[in-house]
Amino acid sequence: MRTARIRDPSGAIRTGRYEDGTVEAAGTTFDVDDPDVDLLAPCDPSKIVCVGRNYAAHAEELGNEVPDRPLLFLKPPNAVAPPNSTVPLPAGKERIDHEAELAVVVGEEARNVDAADAWDVVDGITCMDDVSNRDDQNREQNWVRGKAFDASAPLGPVVADVEHVPADASVMLRVNGEERQHGSRDQFIFDVPTLIEEITTYLTLEPGDVIATGTPDGVGPLSDGDRVEVEVEGVGVLEHDVRAE
Amino acid sequence: MRTARIRDPSGAIRTGRYEDGTVEAAGTTFDVDDPDVDLLAPCDPSKIVCVGRNYAAHAEELGNEVPDRPLLFLKPPNAVAPPNSTVPLPAGKERIDHEAELAVVVGEEARNVDAADAWDVVDGITCMDDVSNRDDQNREQNWVRGKAFDASAPLGPVVADVEHVPADASVMLRVNGEERQHGSRDQFIFDVPTLIEEITTYLTLEPGDVIATGTPDGVGPLSDGDRVEVEVEGVGVLEHDVRAE
Repeated sequence: MRTARIRDPSGAIRTGRYEDGTVEAAGTTFDVDDPDVDLLAPCDPSKIVCVGRNYAAHAEELGNEVPDRPLLFLKPPNAVAPPNSTVPLPAGKERIDHEAELAVVVGEEARNVDAADAWDVVDGITCMDDVSNRDDQNREQNWVRGKAFDASAPLGPVVADVEHVPADASVMLRVNGEERQHGSRDQFIFDVPTLIEEITTYLTLEPGDVIATGTPDGVGPLSDGDRVEVEVEGVGVLEHDVRAE
Repeated sequence: MRTARIRDPSGAIRTGRYEDGTVEAAGTTFDVDDPDVDLLAPCDPSKIVCVGRNYAAHAEELGNEVPDRPLLFLKPPNAVAPPNSTVPLPAGKERIDHEAELAVVVGEEARNVDAADAWDVVDGITCMDDVSNRDDQNREQNWVRGKAFDASAPLGPVVADVEHVPADASVMLRVNGEERQHGSRDQFIFDVPTLIEEITTYLTLEPGDVIATGTPDGVGPLSDGDRVEVEVEGVGVLEHDVRAE
């Protein structure tokens, strides 16, 4: 099953089964292309726990070593942006990059979870663009200006059940139709169960929280007007564009 | 005015005027010592934006340079702990420190705020202990295991209107009754308006969000059973204890 989250014409926020551009919720079928229906981010995270350098080829392209344990960082709720949004690029920066990511949506409150049981706390998988302001990221200890700015985490379009997403699912990104990133889940340095065990050793994950599993190589700069597509095999395509602020 | 947030005997969460151990809300006076009344953190942040090294003497004691712009990091909602809570110290760590902080509570949605207008978006001031797991903080790029673990941000007991808190308000911390930290707000490297302007250049602050303004020198380790008091002049005393997990 795939689910999407919408604001319906009455203003109510609903989550329902997604199929072929429609969402079934509260006994009604909503068309996501209806101008009175807003497609929202598919979950409402209290935090996004992100993983850096989780593909060896991406660590190398930025001149970084492969970490000996997951490199974690945070995006707060202000970072969430819905599918089809226009992400404003912070003003006066030289380089703001796209980073395609497979994102895990948490299904239940989770603390001290063993890797062996980790899939039990997962609701499903979605797509994320970890939009990254390199100017500031490269100047700061904690990546707050660099990674936590408003709308720096477009999410969606749907949450797909785990069984829809192959173990070697492709994680791809296109800018204006041209492929820029193409990795696969079997290239992760730390797999999803390992990440969940490590994160929940320290933090409680809440339903709707997101774990962004890192980006493959091929990251690159975005410019005013670019159209971005993030595709995770088995989930779908998250689209957004960007504009200079 | 000072406000506190409680769960009343019916289970409802209420915010009301605090005076002498009572909270006035919904036409009723609740006694915070009533065992059927729970004193909660005085606000419900979607994020805590923390400032590191905002007192020169503290930067020096950890061997760090004074930053040329605010050093920011994040604590997510799982970090919030109420007054009088028992903070579990992550297991197997050598050093987990207290850090007394003056914490600013945001009153309204705020983005791109000029320093000159910054107090307009502030609800008031509270106390925070920025409990810090040095073992991990010193090993990681972003301070997630080090600073964002569960209950690492006891907050409270009340939100005091800004006019109650002098420009040179003391920020103090005692462990088991013995003073360990004693700084004052006029020692900040970056004052509150400067912090709000800088943060809101990148992030939208939401009502209830917290800006933790850094800690004075005198940070030190906590042990199982310690009782901690954080006092900000004009606010009150936040108490919590700790236990080995």
